[in-house]
Amino acid sequence: MPFGYNGKILRVNLSRDQIRVEDLDETFYRRYMGGEGFVAYFLLTELEPKIDPLSPENKLIFAAGPVTGTSIPGSGRNSVGAKSPLTGGFGESEVGGFWGTELKRAGFDAIIIEGRAKSPVYLWIHDGEAEVMDAHHLWGMETGEVQETIRDELGDELVRVAQIGPGGENLVRFACVIVDLKDAAGRTGMGAVMGSKNLKAIAVRGHSNIEAADKSKMKDLARGFMELMSDSMVSRLHAYGTGAVMDSYLESGNLPVNNFRDGVFRDPMAIDARKVKETVRVGMEGCFACPVRCKKVVKVDEPWNVNPIYGGPEYEALAALGSNCGVDDLKAICKANEICNRYSIDSISTGAVIAFAMECYENGILTDGDTGGLKLNFGNAEALIRLTELIGKREGLGDVLAEGVEKASEIIGEKSRRFAIHVKGLEVPMHEPRLKKALALGYAVSPTGADHMHNLHDTGISSWGRMLEDLSSLGVLEPIPLEDLSPRKIRAFIYYVDWRVLDNCLLLCNFLPWSYIQKTEIVRAVTGWKTTAWELMKIGERVTTMARIFNVREGFTKDDDWLPERFFNPKDTVSGSRIKLDLEKLKEARSVYYSMMGWDENGVPERDKLEELDIGWAAKYI
Amino acid sequence: MPFGYNGKILRVNLSRDQIRVEDLDETFYRRYMGGEGFVAYFLLTELEPKIDPLSPENKLIFAAGPVTGTSIPGSGRNSVGAKSPLTGGFGESEVGGFWGTELKRAGFDAIIIEGRAKSPVYLWIHDGEAEVMDAHHLWGMETGEVQETIRDELGDELVRVAQIGPGGENLVRFACVIVDLKDAAGRTGMGAVMGSKNLKAIAVRGHSNIEAADKSKMKDLARGFMELMSDSMVSRLHAYGTGAVMDSYLESGNLPVNNFRDGVFRDPMAIDARKVKETVRVGMEGCFACPVRCKKVVKVDEPWNVNPIYGGPEYEALAALGSNCGVDDLKAICKANEICNRYSIDSISTGAVIAFAMECYENGILTDGDTGGLKLNFGNAEALIRLTELIGKREGLGDVLAEGVEKASEIIGEKSRRFAIHVKGLEVPMHEPRLKKALALGYAVSPTGADHMHNLHDTGISSWGRMLEDLSSLGVLEPIPLEDLSPRKIRAFIYYVDWRVLDNCLLLCNFLPWSYIQKTEIVRAVTGWKTTAWELMKIGERVTTMARIFNVREGFTKDDDWLPERFFNPKDTVSGSRIKLDLEKLKEARSVYYSMMGWDENGVPERDKLEELDIGWAAKYI
Repeated sequence: MPFGYNGKILRVNLSRDQIRVEDLDETFYRRYMGGEGFVAYFLLTELEPKIDPLSPENKLIFAAGPVTGTSIPGSGRNSVGAKSPLTGGFGESEVGGFWGTELKRAGFDAIIIEGRAKSPVYLWIHDGEAEVMDAHHLWGMETGEVQETIRDELGDELVRVAQIGPGGENLVRFACVIVDLKDAAGRTGMGAVMGSKNLKAIAVRGHSNIEAADKSKMKDLARGFMELMSDSMVSRLHAYGTGAVMDSYLESGNLPVNNFRDGVFRDPMAIDARKVKETVRVGMEGCFACPVRCKKVVKVDEPWNVNPIYGGPEYEALAALGSNCGVDDLKAICKANEICNRYSIDSISTGAVIAFAMECYENGILTDGDTGGLKLNFGNAEALIRLTELIGKREGLGDVLAEGVEKASEIIGEKSRRFAIHVKGLEVPMHEPRLKKALALGYAVSPTGADHMHNLHDTGISSWGRMLEDLSSLGVLEPIPLEDLSPRKIRAFIYYVDWRVLDNCLLLCNFLPWSYIQKTEIVRAVTGWKTTAWELMKIGERVTTMARIFNVREGFTKDDDWLPERFFNPKDTVSGSRIKLDLEKLKEARSVYYSMMGWDENGVPERDKLEELDIGWAAKYI
Repeated sequence: MPFGYNGKILRVNLSRDQIRVEDLDETFYRRYMGGEGFVAYFLLTELEPKIDPLSPENKLIFAAGPVTGTSIPGSGRNSVGAKSPLTGGFGESEVGGFWGTELKRAGFDAIIIEGRAKSPVYLWIHDGEAEVMDAHHLWGMETGEVQETIRDELGDELVRVAQIGPGGENLVRFACVIVDLKDAAGRTGMGAVMGSKNLKAIAVRGHSNIEAADKSKMKDLARGFMELMSDSMVSRLHAYGTGAVMDSYLESGNLPVNNFRDGVFRDPMAIDARKVKETVRVGMEGCFACPVRCKKVVKVDEPWNVNPIYGGPEYEALAALGSNCGVDDLKAICKANEICNRYSIDSISTGAVIAFAMECYENGILTDGDTGGLKLNFGNAEALIRLTELIGKREGLGDVLAEGVEKASEIIGEKSRRFAIHVKGLEVPMHEPRLKKALALGYAVSPTGADHMHNLHDTGISSWGRMLEDLSSLGVLEPIPLEDLSPRKIRAFIYYVDWRVLDNCLLLCNFLPWSYIQKTEIVRAVTGWKTTAWELMKIGERVTTMARIFNVREGFTKDDDWLPERFFNPKDTVSGSRIKLDLEKLKEARSVYYSMMGWDENGVPERDKLEELDIGWAAKYI
């Protein structure tokens, strides 16, 4: 087996109560790498087209990468994938913490879950063994109780648990998979797929070591990371975690306010990570092997009790549950965030669907009758908390909103549609596509819908900074202004996203400022493969193209690679934002993107491109 | 100025007797690198379309690269480029030795020669200065005498001379530029362009050092090369130079015999480099900073005197002047090779055009009347020598053959055309495209015509050897059989050629087994740029695409990307070769190649591809 891998994956068929260990060969690993690469491969080759994502025919994949569980900071991650119940397309999300490492130490590189258990179960994986365990007693429990119960009954406090709370059980379409109680594989509804399989949790524990090919180089790299700790972004992350730039985000126009409607927000500092530190923070935690420790832990006693075992809000949650709902009550945001983690629902989609409901309410499309009396105005912190809970429970209006904005707007009616801010059904995360033009393109074309994890944040290449210095290693030699959406920006976008997708395969945290040269050295040191940045970039391109083929097969067309009307219509804002997105320019950019990717004018990969990416076999799925 | 460069090029207008020093900025260097990259850039941006290659409107470019003149073995090279008088398209060739190093040490990275001198001149470049010198007294001299005279009159035995002999003066269309008397920038007729400008020589001498960014890494790399010396190909090169596998070449079907007609040759060992060592070899020489020393020096006293100052025959000369003319008289081959270097005519094209004449003669298309009584049968060693001289002098039949096989066959008549073995006018070099399928494609699509320096020798990837191990660094993970011409072979071909073109930009010898990882480290150590294999591969692709645009502008079409009829017609061989090339498969391969390159079905680069290659400006030349 190749270094950095166990050479084994676990295939669990819950319908048949079958567990099988499968070997993968080295060429397979080298070609698809891990994480999102495995997800793309298995979804494309093993799923029947057009299946219901919540049926037993869907498969749920947990995948680590070669770097997961090594001593490299940023390697404490794993990927979760399935056909998405939110988008009906390629679903994939990554999560930090310790679970992925534990899976690797337990002897497996990935798990493929098939079928549906007759009654609730959980999976217990330990040192090369796997068992399907009864979970009747866990069903209905919130995540904190689940983890405690499992650890108790297995008699091991170090068991790591990936799981769903009631949100996943209730098939909230944007339910997430929660790991270590506070980390979420958040996007695309992977928790709903887990719920549909009657799979409450996957508990893992292992004692083997992940062997690297070049141990001394591994030590050098890990030690060398200490230099990167002084990088300004890393030291800010270390001090505050994400979300410590709310004021400048508001100033620049990047901070979504009131369902992406407004450009004005009373007090961005009220929801800033610096404020979190001053007021509700009781600690910082991190992922396996990472000294950055960027994860806030918050505790609130009144007016709402917020339990610190559930961590604290990241930037995305601060904005989604905060400014985008017009809420500047930090404690309320912390509470809503805690509920998301207790119920295992994605805080981004939750905030977005509530913001959608608020705008509907303010426009008289939802009434007190619909809301059960909740005054759903922007800024109503109590309504935010209440509605978050209702979504997790699928009660009242929460049952409608649990469908996600796209389906909810279909239920609520035509008039609500313009307030449904999503791409392909995935709610838009908390970076403003009108400001960041490549991000706008990225939201439009990402296989997962509006996703900030397959995307470029243009700000990093608009002046000579770290991101641009890194990109110069790939031949992007000059700064590219924010407002630029010309081919040179698209080229930079593609190069950047290729590598970002590779991070999702390796799995390596996007936050840590490993240069492309260092990342290449990391892969070499772990696997022993004499690889280059060329081979690695091509893996990113390969995986993006496989995910695209998955969506083409599901019936997605060019029209699905598009943004909500709101982002093009300056009249559809209250404050008259200074920034705007030109519809024709984005259309042209999409077409240039297709062409640069080797896809035809409808966004369908060309056969010769597949061959060039060493996935000629995938042509039969188009 | 960036490390590894002088930051300056010399522009010499011979019509106006003007010399100008121009500065280039770092981004320019990083984007186009040097050598073939500079040639492609300047020819594309500075030449008017459709000019006569032998008119003053053509420009002749001598270009070094960042690696030229450093301590890295394999770095003693430079490139020469112009619109080719042989093909009418992109002309470029590289040469080893010491001249490129001396040019860099004299303070320049490249020279652009414009116009035409009123009377013969030479250029004298020394330590940042340049002078146009009278060359009346040199005109008509053979190369040996020229070098001696220039060194004498400049009073410096260490002056390095790039020059033409009578072949260049006489505008033999395949005249080459001779460096250090025994090394040739052989292909595409650069010597004829030099002759058309009345430029007899460029003498250079300099005393500055090429500064590298990371001196200690440079030392490590140069020292580390000693390990590569034990590589089997390198040790063979060190012991014998090129051409020590004639028997296995004949056995496999790679050795061209009798104008690519036959598969049988009496005694391949008679023209093998091992035989050279046993019989006529008096020494081995090398290029600057290279311990391999692969260049034979031969001396013959009778029946022909062969002067050792002109080196000895490489594999290409042994086969072109030997087996391909049916000649197995090693001394005669050495003599013909010496004449090529004395007259500055390309030994490949010379051998090919003589083989063409021999086949015409044997088929009664040329008669004793045409040949001046020479019995031009295959195997006639004396006729070979005599005709080589006549070509250099443009006398008798030599004057017709000096036009190259394409134009000569037009003069001789329709019946001769099927014996003219060339692509785009460039005579096919000594590797058999019927055996090596990717090489066949490479001959067809190379911007310079049938050229082994922009090409892949398939044998290296048909089993797990060094070349394939290297290619695995780029993601080519499995051996690809010789007979394969499917998309996976084309992918490997493209990746390999991207890097080969990069070698022509850096300039680094193709023979030395630097891995792609080491080459990337070399560029980093020399320039200080934090570059990756991705950026470097893209330079190769960029330059190939620029050269393609040059040819598109000159009117080349898809039909010019094709091989002579002979290679498809098994009946057109005497011996009934076991190997064959399928016309339909090559057609399909060409189309796949275009598509993988981002070119349209006619081989014209797509606009978005240009943008992706960071040369959007080049669209206006299509």
